[in-house]
Amino acid sequence: MDGGFHGVFPYLVSPLDGEGRVKREVLTRLCDDLIDAGVHGLTPLGSTGEFAYLSWAQKRDIVETVVAAAKGRVPVVAGVAATTTSEAVRQAREFAAMGCDGILAVLEAYFPVSDAGIKDYFTAVAAAGDLPIVIYTNPNFQRSDLSVALIAELAEVENIRCLKDASSNTGRLLSIMDRVGDKLDIFAASAHIPACVMLIGGKGWMAGPACIVPKQSVKLYELCKVGQFQAAMELQRELWSLNQAFAKYNLAACVKGGLELQGYDVGAPLPPQDGLSDAGRTELRAVLERVGAL
Amino acid sequence: MDGGFHGVFPYLVSPLDGEGRVKREVLTRLCDDLIDAGVHGLTPLGSTGEFAYLSWAQKRDIVETVVAAAKGRVPVVAGVAATTTSEAVRQAREFAAMGCDGILAVLEAYFPVSDAGIKDYFTAVAAAGDLPIVIYTNPNFQRSDLSVALIAELAEVENIRCLKDASSNTGRLLSIMDRVGDKLDIFAASAHIPACVMLIGGKGWMAGPACIVPKQSVKLYELCKVGQFQAAMELQRELWSLNQAFAKYNLAACVKGGLELQGYDVGAPLPPQDGLSDAGRTELRAVLERVGAL
Amino acid sequence: MDGGFHGVFPYLVSPLDGEGRVKREVLTRLCDDLIDAGVHGLTPLGSTGEFAYLSWAQKRDIVETVVAAAKGRVPVVAGVAATTTSEAVRQAREFAAMGCDGILAVLEAYFPVSDAGIKDYFTAVAAAGDLPIVIYTNPNFQRSDLSVALIAELAEVENIRCLKDASSNTGRLLSIMDRVGDKLDIFAASAHIPACVMLIGGKGWMAGPACIVPKQSVKLYELCKVGQFQAAMELQRELWSLNQAFAKYNLAACVKGGLELQGYDVGAPLPPQDGLSDAGRTELRAVLERVGAL
Amino acid sequence: MDGGFHGVFPYLVSPLDGEGRVKREVLTRLCDDLIDAGVHGLTPLGSTGEFAYLSWAQKRDIVETVVAAAKGRVPVVAGVAATTTSEAVRQAREFAAMGCDGILAVLEAYFPVSDAGIKDYFTAVAAAGDLPIVIYTNPNFQRSDLSVALIAELAEVENIRCLKDASSNTGRLLSIMDRVGDKLDIFAASAHIPACVMLIGGKGWMAGPACIVPKQSVKLYELCKVGQFQAAMELQRELWSLNQAFAKYNLAACVKGGLELQGYDVGAPLPPQDGLSDAGRTELRAVLERVGAL
Repeated sequence: MDGGFHGVFPYLVSPLDGEGRVKREVLTRLCDDLIDAGVHGLTPLGSTGEFAYLSWAQKRDIVETVVAAAKGRVPVVAGVAATTTSEAVRQAREFAAMGCDGILAVLEAYFPVSDAGIKDYFTAVAAAGDLPIVIYTNPNFQRSDLSVALIAELAEVENIRCLKDASSNTGRLLSIMDRVGDKLDIFAASAHIPACVMLIGGKGWMAGPACIVPKQSVKLYELCKVGQFQAAMELQRELWSLNQAFAKYNLAACVKGGLELQGYDVGAPLPPQDGLSDAGRTELRAVLERVGAL
Repeated sequence: MDGGFHGVFPYLVSPLDGEGRVKREVLTRLCDDLIDAGVHGLTPLGSTGEFAYLSWAQKRDIVETVVAAAKGRVPVVAGVAATTTSEAVRQAREFAAMGCDGILAVLEAYFPVSDAGIKDYFTAVAAAGDLPIVIYTNPNFQRSDLSVALIAELAEVENIRCLKDASSNTGRLLSIMDRVGDKLDIFAASAHIPACVMLIGGKGWMAGPACIVPKQSVKLYELCKVGQFQAAMELQRELWSLNQAFAKYNLAACVKGGLELQGYDVGAPLPPQDGLSDAGRTELRAVLERVGAL
Repeated sequence: MDGGFHGVFPYLVSPLDGEGRVKREVLTRLCDDLIDAGVHGLTPLGSTGEFAYLSWAQKRDIVETVVAAAKGRVPVVAGVAATTTSEAVRQAREFAAMGCDGILAVLEAYFPVSDAGIKDYFTAVAAAGDLPIVIYTNPNFQRSDLSVALIAELAEVENIRCLKDASSNTGRLLSIMDRVGDKLDIFAASAHIPACVMLIGGKGWMAGPACIVPKQSVKLYELCKVGQFQAAMELQRELWSLNQAFAKYNLAACVKGGLELQGYDVGAPLPPQDGLSDAGRTELRAVLERVGAL
Repeated sequence: MDGGFHGVFPYLVSPLDGEGRVKREVLTRLCDDLIDAGVHGLTPLGSTGEFAYLSWAQKRDIVETVVAAAKGRVPVVAGVAATTTSEAVRQAREFAAMGCDGILAVLEAYFPVSDAGIKDYFTAVAAAGDLPIVIYTNPNFQRSDLSVALIAELAEVENIRCLKDASSNTGRLLSIMDRVGDKLDIFAASAHIPACVMLIGGKGWMAGPACIVPKQSVKLYELCKVGQFQAAMELQRELWSLNQAFAKYNLAACVKGGLELQGYDVGAPLPPQDGLSDAGRTELRAVLERVGAL
């Protein structure tokens, strides 16, 4: 695996019991089923994985479990997220030592950060583990923002290979591609329409919803990859109601709620986050049935 | 013409001389050339047409000129914009009497407006002229916002047939289509990638940049319409640098500056708006040359 | 009158009948009563005066009525608001010719404006009528924003004498005072606590609520002026519930609704603005009774 | 000490060496000097204390050092901040066991939180350590927001006694006081004008700048407390230039930079935060000299 990531990377949930212990069996079964469904990689500790709510001990257990479950069949790209450069470097080194194949790098911030500070952060993470790096920007939930100009600078850094953008501005992705050429592979998040991102040159999507509709997501990817965009759109139209549900409810609550409906005992998101409401569960059940995922 | 609008509708600039008089000849020649280039309609008094900067006398002269220039060859969809319902109704009636084929309806606001107030406004405009209505939402520049639920209600109003959305959130367009079915035809603005909007089911785009790249815009539309999305994307990629320039500079200044480069003496936008800067002109010239529009 | 404005300037409502004609008698009586109550000036065509919703004919009638009613007893500072410099200059000249004593200058905007453009606009208005100018910034409702640095530049322009700031950031007012010294007199709007603005050096307030509590506003001003800030605060605390109501409902609807309760037949705000709801009227009545204004 | 906090509570910086170890001696000397200057309490682990950038081990060392330095002379109110309720409860219990006199409670968030979730969080923290709780809201940097209605509900919770509000909207503070009466004591942050907050009924301020101008802050507080608001304003005007500097630069960088100028070797903020720039240092030095703090 050389970091040329592509395809569907589900953002895994973090199943925890009432005492906050990782439910390794549930997570292992989920990873196995996703791989059987054809996904191209696994991403623990993304937004859906509640990275912002977990202790380091929980994070380590989750990544260990996923690496063990993957057995090298698909790449594991684990989420590093910190407010300080030193903590991010530490996490990246440990994940590399644990056998991960890539790092999804998030910069958390409290005070605003300068572009120079942002660049130092990602450059240090990229140097830490000698793994391919996916930069992750989410202007809705993270307090730092990456300009197109800064992304172009980061594209020149060794090991920085991919960008996952969780804005809803698809045109911005095309502007980035226009600027960085093939120096960065672009992945969509659930706020974009995956078929559109594939049309403009995206390499796939990294997103929570793929946990509960893995087969359909892989099918959509394959149709796009061979250029059958109109057929892809028919499937996309059906799947989009899922994205709408995810935008409406807490993302982690929604994916965990969907997995519970499918028989994975992943539990609720950590308080004070709300679990999926009854109305949300009813809506989600209807959507999953419609797309054949229940 | 029954309001089944489709294709490329350039948002026309408003050419004015130093005393604020409409340059009818320049505008007539521009309309002729755009129709010759194959555009599917003409839209005076959109954002690019500086509707927010013009007196009623100027607006009337512009619409008269465009209707006369079009000679019925393509539909003319004129922009109505007001803060009060009564003024919007008055404008719509006059445009209908002047021979327009449709109304682009904008709600200007100072204080926030309730959904009921927004609905009343658009419903009154739709009833005023018995012409097909294109609702225009631009969350960046207008002070009212249309929720998906409200758009679904407006889709039920007689004469309301189309939506032009100038957000950059392409996924929202798919959500709207999912909600209203074929009750509204959706048009892209310059912040969306037109090829993506066509892929998901859009009927075309209404946008300022089409004034200066009409042939290329029509070509892109035709490729999309026959499902040749990959060929469309090659052209789209070239054209996108124009949209990036438009996002960077004042939209009216940019389109007027481009038309000046092409030999149309349209003048500068009305002060205190800035004209296109020298840097902007240089950037725009390079882009226009690259896409064969200069 | 030399532009050394100070004290309480009610932002007058614009009473209109169902056909949009100015109710001159109602407006005249309101002006008389306000002057009798001790207000220090009158401001037609501010936000509360629905300047953004009126035609030029309506605006002219309103200013004529107010100037005639004032009979020189207090200064009349009329609101100029436009998107173009030429229209703003025209309005300022006409208001000067009609006998106004000052201009409240608002820059409306659709596209973003550069600082140079903003400066040109206000400078042209200041030169137009040779009247003292009050710059009015309202970051909530207007689409241009004035930085402290730009305000400092404007403070150097001849005739620009006052600033009315409708942000809720009182510290920003102190920063502006610190920067411009006595070159600008600062007035509060209803989002600030008037007693605080007076404490830090403000010269008064220009605001809609003073239409319905003129005596109490004047009393508060006088207590502040002689340095009795704790006594002022007791009164301020009572009056603040009015400001909270104004923040909750449409400002024009709220002031018009209050005046209706007090027996002024000013009518409702222009549609599609909502009139004051029943709940709003009940809340407002209770507050007015509590402060002795009903 | 019964939680009836009042007066000036400096938000302490967190002095760390290059390996991230707490510089206990520097911090102890700073605490001693602040107490000698008359401050009414000490607050480790606020925003200025970089709580969002520290490990638990660092946080524990800092609080231990401050409690030991205070020797019971003034109350120590330590900052608890977490995304999960369980982690916040754990921190509050440990701080109570370490001898703190109060808890400054912050809710960090990634996904949006419902009002019910926010209430559960603060209620659980309040029950954890049986110490008086100061709720801290900072709409600029934290991703949760507390409505006035929710604050009123929290005011009913046992142990919740104070609110520190770091918005710049001083009117909102008056609305909160109007709503909760004496159930919550309100403290200003550096974005408010302390003299104004005292005028409307505030009990003091909790803010980073007090670290470098403690004597002046205490003097200002005392003048306000005896109702000498005009004398207070003269001092306030001088001190405000400090708040302007703090708003301009990273808050932690600015306070640390000021303390370095005063001879406290507190180091720079943790990367990727920038240290104070040369321009910032020059500006800060001039201000400190002007107010007699250097």
